[in-house]
Amino acid sequence: MKQLKHVLLERLMHYYHFVVERQDAADGATVTSTQIAKLVHMDATLVRKDLAAIGVRGYPHVGFRSHEVVQAIRDALGFDEPHRAAIIGAGRLGQAIASYHGFTPYGVDIVALFDIAPQKTGLIVGRHEILPLASLARVVAEQNVSIVILTVPASAAQEVADRAVAAGVRAIWNFATTGLVVPDGVFVHHERISVGLAELSYHLKQDAS
Amino acid sequence: MKQLKHVLLERLMHYYHFVVERQDAADGATVTSTQIAKLVHMDATLVRKDLAAIGVRGYPHVGFRSHEVVQAIRDALGFDEPHRAAIIGAGRLGQAIASYHGFTPYGVDIVALFDIAPQKTGLIVGRHEILPLASLARVVAEQNVSIVILTVPASAAQEVADRAVAAGVRAIWNFATTGLVVPDGVFVHHERISVGLAELSYHLKQDAS
Repeated sequence: MKQLKHVLLERLMHYYHFVVERQDAADGATVTSTQIAKLVHMDATLVRKDLAAIGVRGYPHVGFRSHEVVQAIRDALGFDEPHRAAIIGAGRLGQAIASYHGFTPYGVDIVALFDIAPQKTGLIVGRHEILPLASLARVVAEQNVSIVILTVPASAAQEVADRAVAAGVRAIWNFATTGLVVPDGVFVHHERISVGLAELSYHLKQDAS
Repeated sequence: MKQLKHVLLERLMHYYHFVVERQDAADGATVTSTQIAKLVHMDATLVRKDLAAIGVRGYPHVGFRSHEVVQAIRDALGFDEPHRAAIIGAGRLGQAIASYHGFTPYGVDIVALFDIAPQKTGLIVGRHEILPLASLARVVAEQNVSIVILTVPASAAQEVADRAVAAGVRAIWNFATTGLVVPDGVFVHHERISVGLAELSYHLKQDAS
């Protein structure tokens, strides 16, 4: 399959959430493109086109079989090929992510939590013991970690990313509010929570004027 | 000013983070469109066009004055017109958000934290005491809350959103993985953390094949 575009991937995730949530235990559950389209505020034609692109076909008078939609999206996005992730930065956000159990269904398994502050070493957060950053390269190699979740201050992000890349990490989920320079072949997803805040703030400003 | 498009607003946020981070204490700090463009991986012409759209002009042989860029973005997005927010759902994510102090610079001030579970009422999280959901309408009115941050399970999100809208809230920051139906004039920003996960998972799948 050729590379999926970011916008298509984002739409597939919306369909996925919708279908997973309404799917009941019965194997025979079905869903129509019109139902998906209505909830995600998109056109039913686009929904059908997107699903066709990942090999899902509808049935006459029935629509799509929910479990086929769910599995096709899981296959297309690689949710059933688990990858190991380490969190670097055991502040509030890092700890919240470390305590969260909702990543496994997306093929991401958190196996370690690091912090540079010596006084945090050995503290327990959820199922994880905070490890010193000095052990990063060893743990990445031993545990076969391919993803780093970066929850350090912006000022430390590049240096920590460099260490993770040197250790062999191939993808970075960056929560620090800064860009990162990485070699070709390393993927960075910038999570920009503050864009959401800015949108809310901007909307209320428009509303008031 | 006419409505800013989502993509422009997102770009302005990237510029904002970049300029704020590299701005030193001196009033005279400057930045060029080429410097901004390089870090955010965009074209310098687009950076200049975006800044011109919100009224920032460059100076010959100097570039842009950093404090002018920062203030123009703050004005355009309404960061200096504070709005009060309440979190509904005091689970791990709601508590992490309640403990976070980074929203004030974006004009959003968290004033209350609610949960439907009676056994959570009265517990302290950061600066907040968990309030019963039954007091939502009263607190929204008394504290002039305009934003609700929704961190409840997907199955409860619509009902809780309806209550927030009925109480007079005008913007919802939705962390639940479900769409919401709201009346015209109420703005919803869907925060989709799992899209980031899906992108990472998909990239690693491509990488391996």
